Amino acid sequence: MVKEASAYSTAQEMAGRQRDISVSEFFLKNRHLLGFDSPSKALLTTVKEAVDNALDACEEAGVLPDIQVEVADEGDNIFTVVVEDNGPGILENQIARIFGKLLYGSRFHKLSQSRGQQGMGISAAGMYAQLTTGKSLHVISRVKGEPMASELFVSIDTAKNRPELHGKKKIQWDRPHGTRVEVEMEGRYPKGVHSVDMYLKQTAIASPYVSFHYKGPRGEKVTYTRSSTELPPRPTEIKPHPRGVELGRLIQMLNNSSSRTLLNFLENEFSRVGRKTAREIVKHAGRKLTERSLPKRIAHVQANALYRAIKKVPVSAPRTDCVVPIGEQRLYEGMRKEIDADFYIVRTRPPAVYRGNPFQVEVGIAYGRPGGADLEVDEGGRIHQAAHHRREASAALALTTDEPAHLLRFANRVPMLYEQGGCAITRAVLQTNWRSYGLKQPKGALPLAPMVVVVHLASVWVPFTSEAKEAIALYPEIIKELKLGLQACARRLAEHLHQESRLKREYEKRSHIEKYLPHVGIALQEILELSDEQRDRSVASLDAVLQQTRKLQ
Amino acid sequence: MVKEASAYSTAQEMAGRQRDISVSEFFLKNRHLLGFDSPSKALLTTVKEAVDNALDACEEAGVLPDIQVEVADEGDNIFTVVVEDNGPGILENQIARIFGKLLYGSRFHKLSQSRGQQGMGISAAGMYAQLTTGKSLHVISRVKGEPMASELFVSIDTAKNRPELHGKKKIQWDRPHGTRVEVEMEGRYPKGVHSVDMYLKQTAIASPYVSFHYKGPRGEKVTYTRSSTELPPRPTEIKPHPRGVELGRLIQMLNNSSSRTLLNFLENEFSRVGRKTAREIVKHAGRKLTERSLPKRIAHVQANALYRAIKKVPVSAPRTDCVVPIGEQRLYEGMRKEIDADFYIVRTRPPAVYRGNPFQVEVGIAYGRPGGADLEVDEGGRIHQAAHHRREASAALALTTDEPAHLLRFANRVPMLYEQGGCAITRAVLQTNWRSYGLKQPKGALPLAPMVVVVHLASVWVPFTSEAKEAIALYPEIIKELKLGLQACARRLAEHLHQESRLKREYEKRSHIEKYLPHVGIALQEILELSDEQRDRSVASLDAVLQQTRKLQ
Repeated sequence: MVKEASAYSTAQEMAGRQRDISVSEFFLKNRHLLGFDSPSKALLTTVKEAVDNALDACEEAGVLPDIQVEVADEGDNIFTVVVEDNGPGILENQIARIFGKLLYGSRFHKLSQSRGQQGMGISAAGMYAQLTTGKSLHVISRVKGEPMASELFVSIDTAKNRPELHGKKKIQWDRPHGTRVEVEMEGRYPKGVHSVDMYLKQTAIASPYVSFHYKGPRGEKVTYTRSSTELPPRPTEIKPHPRGVELGRLIQMLNNSSSRTLLNFLENEFSRVGRKTAREIVKHAGRKLTERSLPKRIAHVQANALYRAIKKVPVSAPRTDCVVPIGEQRLYEGMRKEIDADFYIVRTRPPAVYRGNPFQVEVGIAYGRPGGADLEVDEGGRIHQAAHHRREASAALALTTDEPAHLLRFANRVPMLYEQGGCAITRAVLQTNWRSYGLKQPKGALPLAPMVVVVHLASVWVPFTSEAKEAIALYPEIIKELKLGLQACARRLAEHLHQESRLKREYEKRSHIEKYLPHVGIALQEILELSDEQRDRSVASLDAVLQQTRKLQ
Repeated sequence: MVKEASAYSTAQEMAGRQRDISVSEFFLKNRHLLGFDSPSKALLTTVKEAVDNALDACEEAGVLPDIQVEVADEGDNIFTVVVEDNGPGILENQIARIFGKLLYGSRFHKLSQSRGQQGMGISAAGMYAQLTTGKSLHVISRVKGEPMASELFVSIDTAKNRPELHGKKKIQWDRPHGTRVEVEMEGRYPKGVHSVDMYLKQTAIASPYVSFHYKGPRGEKVTYTRSSTELPPRPTEIKPHPRGVELGRLIQMLNNSSSRTLLNFLENEFSRVGRKTAREIVKHAGRKLTERSLPKRIAHVQANALYRAIKKVPVSAPRTDCVVPIGEQRLYEGMRKEIDADFYIVRTRPPAVYRGNPFQVEVGIAYGRPGGADLEVDEGGRIHQAAHHRREASAALALTTDEPAHLLRFANRVPMLYEQGGCAITRAVLQTNWRSYGLKQPKGALPLAPMVVVVHLASVWVPFTSEAKEAIALYPEIIKELKLGLQACARRLAEHLHQESRLKREYEKRSHIEKYLPHVGIALQEILELSDEQRDRSVASLDAVLQQTRKLQ
């Protein structure tokens, strides 16, 4: 049975090999989980994480974001990425941990809508840079009101998940406040749908109050200018909703509570629980629990009874004003600015809830016939060809007939450029029957149309399928809402397409009438022996009658 | 611009909100990343993690695994899962950390093939149990040679990722050695392709030396008996291959090295680097590096030069004997035992390498015509219908024509039951042109055939797409190898199908001949005025000639 006894181990030998694994080591070895699996994805992920942080900071401080992004080719597959913002700056004593430690951040522990939620992204970019070039992150930050900026060089001690500092000093910096991060890493400059350009363009659609100044590795410069000078309202932080809380979490909350009575605990630590509901819950719980029970002292059996009572007593649905959508008007403006199409429709759904977490879905469709002339109806009801100068479309978003529609996915305003296949948004688009709205759609595929579909999910907690945050998990509640949003837009699109084809038919009819009416006039003149003047008057009134008739159709 | 100043934060306020996030909290909130997104998946993942650990321990200790699995329905969506093994046991002082701390284990830091590699699975199951029922893990373990077993109740302090002990004592236990873990959790009992049954069945295919005794929640008992009493050879641990090492990792290795010279460092810490290759590398590096440079003192620029030299100097390909495939004979036996089909073919590819990591691909195909009679050729070259009693197939693996083939995916002998869509194995199967092997295949889909395709990837480091280890990342080197394995099996299948249809045609011909030969005899008798005896002899020799001719075709 056993061939070489020496190859096997005893329990004692196995015990000797057990070790702690630091979270940095874990993600360094599994860096594809964080979006660093290939050089081109690593470069894009780095830009994305730095820009997401910059935007979160600006919005949190109430500053209209002005972001500089630069990607420089250093040769030999090495690139430098620089992202600089006009945000509030970072306190010097926080910089090392924010940039040199995984799982450190301000957004994980609260239920509030933000781009970042994990406290991993930018440190992971630094870790990848360190792995591929050995270089540390170069950070400059100046806090609003401070006379000088701080300059630090930070890397991660991956064995301990701890920042290492390689230089720190005060410097003069011409910005009054903001943060600049510079990363030197192995990379490849991605093009097309996974490009930095595409990421910035999509971010400009979802956050039209942001201005970007981008300098690419071939010296190319692109500016995305804000179309709105109004920041979105600040999302409020909420407490957990009792319906979404699991038993273990409830026990933990009871243990950690500083409330002195069960009644206070229920009122203070949950949303939507007032005095009346709290009393109701305690009454239902039984098990010798009273309104004045000390939360820390509540035993397991009692906690279980409390848990069951919470599930039974009616509680209002979660507050949803904590979720801030882009808004129909803004999304419409963002789409018009960045996508050249003939027809735009945007719908923001009412907020909904999954597992106690409020979320809200927005869908936009931009539709255009490439190179086709537009028909317009003027105030007099006349149809005419509109003068339309199609802007030069970015190749990646060009509208083409008989090719799959472009799908732009956003979570809390952040574009998701990878993992389209595994995303709830894609699932919802594929499950929508686009044929019933007049479009071609191969089975199980995206509709074939000159169309861009924009879908945004805003939530206090977006359930991503991986730490790289490139796709939303397939929660049925979320897919349902997404489909309702898609259907609402598709219905309006179908109306537009119907009207358009009606206009087209009428335009053709009118062309025919215009062509033959003079001949009808001549024929009438011959038959009825009219004068030239009578003939012209008849033709004119015939034309008017026909136009009128068509208007009434 | 700013609507309510109070809603915004200063840099100081933001700094005050920055906090450490414990890895347990992170995965508790993101538990779908570990395979605990739904009650049914959570139950299966728990069984899987416990069984994987049991098998790893048994194999490491050289014990033929005898595993008891029990799932009991406690009502109200609560289930108890018990997994008990005859492994070497766990030292008492290790139990709390192994079961009550994420990222703690013995397999992460070495390059060696095993089922577990992250040190997370079983603790995550405990964390989920704790969250949903508030109960701690109940562990009993007895180390070989010890008179008593240890019994512990363990939970996780998620805020600190630290085990909490709720009771520990020595008890009598009738097993001489082994480990028993009991989990009480919210769950749903999964059926079909995601069932515990299916997981055990597939594990029995890939590890035919394991016996399982399974008791389900309705009292049903299933035993999977081992078909082999030979354990696979122990995979050896390897050192990193110089080609797969990144610059940052090299710098880290230099810093942590206890070697006193660069020459020793290169020889000792890499596989495939001997004295000659080490000297060559140092020579190529230049930058004042000598064979006697102290590794710890090597500066960044020098490390970079060393890194480039390593990439230039030829080094033999990695050792591949560290990867242990199931083996063609064993996999064949495993498949025959658990899948009822007419034709089996198995191919083990030679080992290959991705990013410095050796891996090996195995493919098996089981093909059968459901309910169809088999044709066999006997020693005399005669075709006849074989007596074939189809065993009662498990519903989930029933072979049906015109339905997609079943795909069973394995990584280091562990079945992967979820995320089929995003897996490199699925990608390779879809990219194989099954039509050229005589099967029906809709575009971009699995072939339609009464067939089970078994694919196994063995590696010292399997690149999973997520911590739940349900799919393999899409590395081109891996997909290429998978396709070669699939093609080799498909070719043999095509030959089999060809031969089968030839046999069928001949069988039909023979039936015709048998039917008409007596009439030919009567006709001959009339024309040539033969006696009855002459007629019968002619018919017999005609029959022999025809059989002969067909044999020579």
